[in-house]
This record gives sequence, structure tokens and C-alpha cells, in this order.
Amino acid sequence: MYAIDQTTLPHATLPGIDHVTLAGSDHGLEQLSVWRQRLDVGAATPPHRHDCEEVVLCEAGEGELHIEDRVVPFRAGTTVTIPRNEPHQIFSTGSVPLEIVAVFAATPVEAFLPDGTRIELPWRS
Amino acid sequence: MYAIDQTTLPHATLPGIDHVTLAGSDHGLEQLSVWRQRLDVGAATPPHRHDCEEVVLCEAGEGELHIEDRVVPFRAGTTVTIPRNEPHQIFSTGSVPLEIVAVFAATPVEAFLPDGTRIELPWRS
Repeated sequence: MYAIDQTTLPHATLPGIDHVTLAGSDHGLEQLSVWRQRLDVGAATPPHRHDCEEVVLCEAGEGELHIEDRVVPFRAGTTVTIPRNEPHQIFSTGSVPLEIVAVFAATPVEAFLPDGTRIELPWRS
Repeated sequence: MYAIDQTTLPHATLPGIDHVTLAGSDHGLEQLSVWRQRLDVGAATPPHRHDCEEVVLCEAGEGELHIEDRVVPFRAGTTVTIPRNEPHQIFSTGSVPLEIVAVFAATPVEAFLPDGTRIELPWRS
């Protein structure tokens, strides 16, 4: 499978978050996962970490990355980098939904609460 | 470095191709590189391969992936997946420039001609 029409892909949700897996193990990949998410105004991810590096491209809206006791603001046109296993949380802080593409150096992608508990994600990753 | 303003990043060029490295080893990453490229109407990459998986998100225009004696058309809204070490070539075939984001499971990213010769890229990857 070399080409995937993004409009055919299933959506999944967490509270305030719409998710689409653009590419991952279900598409034959072995090293990469790519997600697209839209976070409603005021929505946030749970605090979590992944056992791989993550890069977030912000396409619309404004957000904050909370990481290592720091608050890192970002907006459309910002690239966000998140080290492997670093607990973090993303907040949608703008007046329009936050739209991001998140890239991971693993597939499927596992997510863990900061205490190490595995998060059961409602999507194939 | 957690947040990178994409407007501050240097551009590099190959014939018909404008390149920006959105994230990579220069930004402290160890597992991922993310590039943005614009291919002029009629432009193409050289035939090449990478020693890591690649995912291409097409944001504007139309293109063709030439891979394994196949021609795979794509357009804005298509995700393209390229296996590790698979020789391939991307053509900009639409009436407007082809705009893509390319994600790699390595950093820096090496590129090789199909015969194995290393390509000297004019950008930090």
C-alpha cells in the first residue's frame, strides 16, 4: 500500500479530541506512525508519555505543551519536539480548535500515564 | 528546544525543489526528521532511497510516486508510504506546485542513488 486517501480513514475520539491515524502499522509501516488530531477549544490530552520520539506540527489554532515543569506555547506554523519517554500534556488554548499532525518513531504507538500505566487508546495507532 | 518557529528555518534548493528541514538532529532529535518541500510544476526528485521508512503527506498539488516499476498517483489529502531502502522518485505532475511534508524514521537522513552512491544533500537533514 503506497497511497492512502485520508478521507477514507476512520475517526476516533477522546473527550474534546478528534483523531485520525494517517499512517501506521495497519498500513504496513514498521518504524513510523502519523496521527492527525483536532482538539476543541479548551480541550487537552491526558498527561502521558510515549516510548519513542514525537514531533508535532501545528496546522491551526494555538496550544501549550506542558513538559518538565515548563509551559511552552505554540501556534500554527510551530514545530514541537517531545523527547522519548518525557511526560507531557498538550492543551488547546486558542479561540479556534487546535489542529496538529503528530509523528512518532514507532508503530504501533503506546501511550503511558506518567506513573507507567498503559493508556488504552480508542484508535489503532 | 521544544518549539521551533518554522518561519525562522533556512531554505535550501535542488533544481525545482525548495526544501526546509522542519525538525531533525540539529534540533536535538535522535529518531525523526521532518522535511517540507515544494516541487515546481514538472519538477522531480532524483531516483533515490533512504535507509529508513518514509511517510509523505501531500498538502497541495498532484504528484506521482515511481516505485518498483509502478506509478502511484497522489494529490493533496493523500498519504504516501515508502518502505526502507526502496528506490523511488517523486514527480510534481499537477498544474500548481506540489507541496509535501516528508517524515523519516532516522536523523540525520541519508539518501542514496539506486546504485548505492551516497547523495550529497544541500541541506542539514
